[in-house]
Amino acid sequence: MIHSTAIVSPRAQLGRDVSVGPFTIIHDDVVIGDGSTIDSHCEIGYPTALAEGAKLEIGAKALIRSHSIFYAGSRFGERLVTGHRVTVRERTHAGANFQIGTLGDIQGHCEIGDYVRFHSNVHIGQHSKIGNFVWIFPYVVLTNDPHPPSHVMMGATVEDYAAIATMSIILPGVRLGQGCLIGAHSSVNRDVAPDTVAAGAPAKFVCNTNAVKLKDGSGRTAYPWRHHFHRGYPEAVVQQWLAEAAALANLS
Amino acid sequence: MIHSTAIVSPRAQLGRDVSVGPFTIIHDDVVIGDGSTIDSHCEIGYPTALAEGAKLEIGAKALIRSHSIFYAGSRFGERLVTGHRVTVRERTHAGANFQIGTLGDIQGHCEIGDYVRFHSNVHIGQHSKIGNFVWIFPYVVLTNDPHPPSHVMMGATVEDYAAIATMSIILPGVRLGQGCLIGAHSSVNRDVAPDTVAAGAPAKFVCNTNAVKLKDGSGRTAYPWRHHFHRGYPEAVVQQWLAEAAALANLS
Amino acid sequence: MIHSTAIVSPRAQLGRDVSVGPFTIIHDDVVIGDGSTIDSHCEIGYPTALAEGAKLEIGAKALIRSHSIFYAGSRFGERLVTGHRVTVRERTHAGANFQIGTLGDIQGHCEIGDYVRFHSNVHIGQHSKIGNFVWIFPYVVLTNDPHPPSHVMMGATVEDYAAIATMSIILPGVRLGQGCLIGAHSSVNRDVAPDTVAAGAPAKFVCNTNAVKLKDGSGRTAYPWRHHFHRGYPEAVVQQWLAEAAALANLS
Repeated sequence: MIHSTAIVSPRAQLGRDVSVGPFTIIHDDVVIGDGSTIDSHCEIGYPTALAEGAKLEIGAKALIRSHSIFYAGSRFGERLVTGHRVTVRERTHAGANFQIGTLGDIQGHCEIGDYVRFHSNVHIGQHSKIGNFVWIFPYVVLTNDPHPPSHVMMGATVEDYAAIATMSIILPGVRLGQGCLIGAHSSVNRDVAPDTVAAGAPAKFVCNTNAVKLKDGSGRTAYPWRHHFHRGYPEAVVQQWLAEAAALANLS
Repeated sequence: MIHSTAIVSPRAQLGRDVSVGPFTIIHDDVVIGDGSTIDSHCEIGYPTALAEGAKLEIGAKALIRSHSIFYAGSRFGERLVTGHRVTVRERTHAGANFQIGTLGDIQGHCEIGDYVRFHSNVHIGQHSKIGNFVWIFPYVVLTNDPHPPSHVMMGATVEDYAAIATMSIILPGVRLGQGCLIGAHSSVNRDVAPDTVAAGAPAKFVCNTNAVKLKDGSGRTAYPWRHHFHRGYPEAVVQQWLAEAAALANLS
Repeated sequence: MIHSTAIVSPRAQLGRDVSVGPFTIIHDDVVIGDGSTIDSHCEIGYPTALAEGAKLEIGAKALIRSHSIFYAGSRFGERLVTGHRVTVRERTHAGANFQIGTLGDIQGHCEIGDYVRFHSNVHIGQHSKIGNFVWIFPYVVLTNDPHPPSHVMMGATVEDYAAIATMSIILPGVRLGQGCLIGAHSSVNRDVAPDTVAAGAPAKFVCNTNAVKLKDGSGRTAYPWRHHFHRGYPEAVVQQWLAEAAALANLS
């Protein structure tokens, strides 16, 4: 399952049933879990002194699509899925079921929880902290330097269930509260309260998220999104979300 | 004309005089028209269940530049031209003379007319509908989900001759009228009338397009652009545009 | 030091101790200086008639990271460093110590000075003029067409020491004065005076740059950045900057 044109270091540790596509390079300091697929034209475990000797650890059942580049010194839980040509630098630590869309650029030195999903072309600056079940949409940038260029690094923090819509920028040190929504094309320079919508440049409070109605004719609220959007989440988690929604409906 | 390092499926159907560059992969479900060139490091016909068995059909005289990825299940008319590292997913249906700039990311499930030109790094969400002779400039995003994440998909519609300037975002379900111009760095949340300029965030009416003067000292109006910009269009089409311009001049 | 899978034209001129990675292509009209490293999956010297016969000249000690593409007809001073998957077209003329971040897209026909640093994913339109010691941050676009599409090309000018923060767009013909700072998410449609901060859409004067304080507890001003940020600059240059800072401190 290793293509004959792939170049795999004898020092790399590949689990059982790992597939490696044509023209892919796997460097020395790499550990890949069982049942993972690495597509063509990838470069996995790109060496860097900044990894400080740490290996690249990719959990079981990963799917890394073609033309992607991962540096040494990062680690990922099970079922990592990427689009094409993602770039992930050293000291990126992510949980299980992380999805990175095509062209994603993760600068490393950041912490990412479980079930986080990045759509295409997001840029995650160093020292970002991202919780669980977070969604980040295309062309969003998380920054870190309040007066570039400088040595001051103030990463953004994104709490669980938050969603950042397309082409928004999160300025250094900003905290996005649990379940908040950042509207498209926003520039966020202040913290955003949990379960609120902020939008604009600079972003301002718009409403509570539960005031946004689903445009599907149901009359239901669109947030928390976990009450109606379940694609790709495990059954146990979805049941918990449905129970939460039912309890909320009984309250009101 | 197939490079010795290229990997071409025996099931792929290549026309006459098709050239395939080094380190390029052509998968099973691919039909490429006569006289086409596929550069190096490409992946053509990436398999996906979402193609539902449909082949990737690329018309004659295509030029696909290096590091590009096309999924199975899309089709293109003659003379497709791409920049480097474009990504085009399944069920993208485009007409003739389509140009996609470097880094373009077409999410699939969309309809695109003839003579459409994307500059670098555009992102086209699923369910977008794009007419003929449309121009889309760098870092423009066409979105589709009014309250992400959700199952509601409302693609944008871009009518013939419209132009969307750099780093603008078109929000879900918006229709851009024929010949309109969207100013750079805009966020468009409402329909835009034909032959008008809209700009800002949120985008608002600025003027009719024919009020914009060409900055070339000629004193002529800059729109409709087809009255003065003809590079790469066929002679018959240009003659029609020139006749239209002459008729308009006689009227005024 | 040429990997066995690399394809290097016998007409390319490689200096001493040049390293070429796997699956990389080096075309005919290429001159690479001593001690340079070209990573894997690159395409160097992509042929184009627009180069008008000029070679691609890369100075000594370059580091070009994987998946990058350089066209024929450009030239670079010593110590060029790139991230991954950069695209640089013909007639890009840059000085020494140029850095281009991952996904950078330089459209060619532009002039760039010494010690210029682009972070990830910048787009430099044709006819841009960039001075020395300039910083450009992610998702910044320099445009050139005042009424797209047209034949009028008015490149932007960026003077020495200027910094353009993330996701800003510089409109055609705009001049950014020496040492100015463009705030993140700005759209700049007018010239910006030296040593001032401009921000917003459209960008407006905010303050003089020396009114911005460093967020490091030092109480010092954040600009000119050269008075406190020295990473990667040569000792002689840094000493000059420190002397300038000391003289300024004595004045005040």
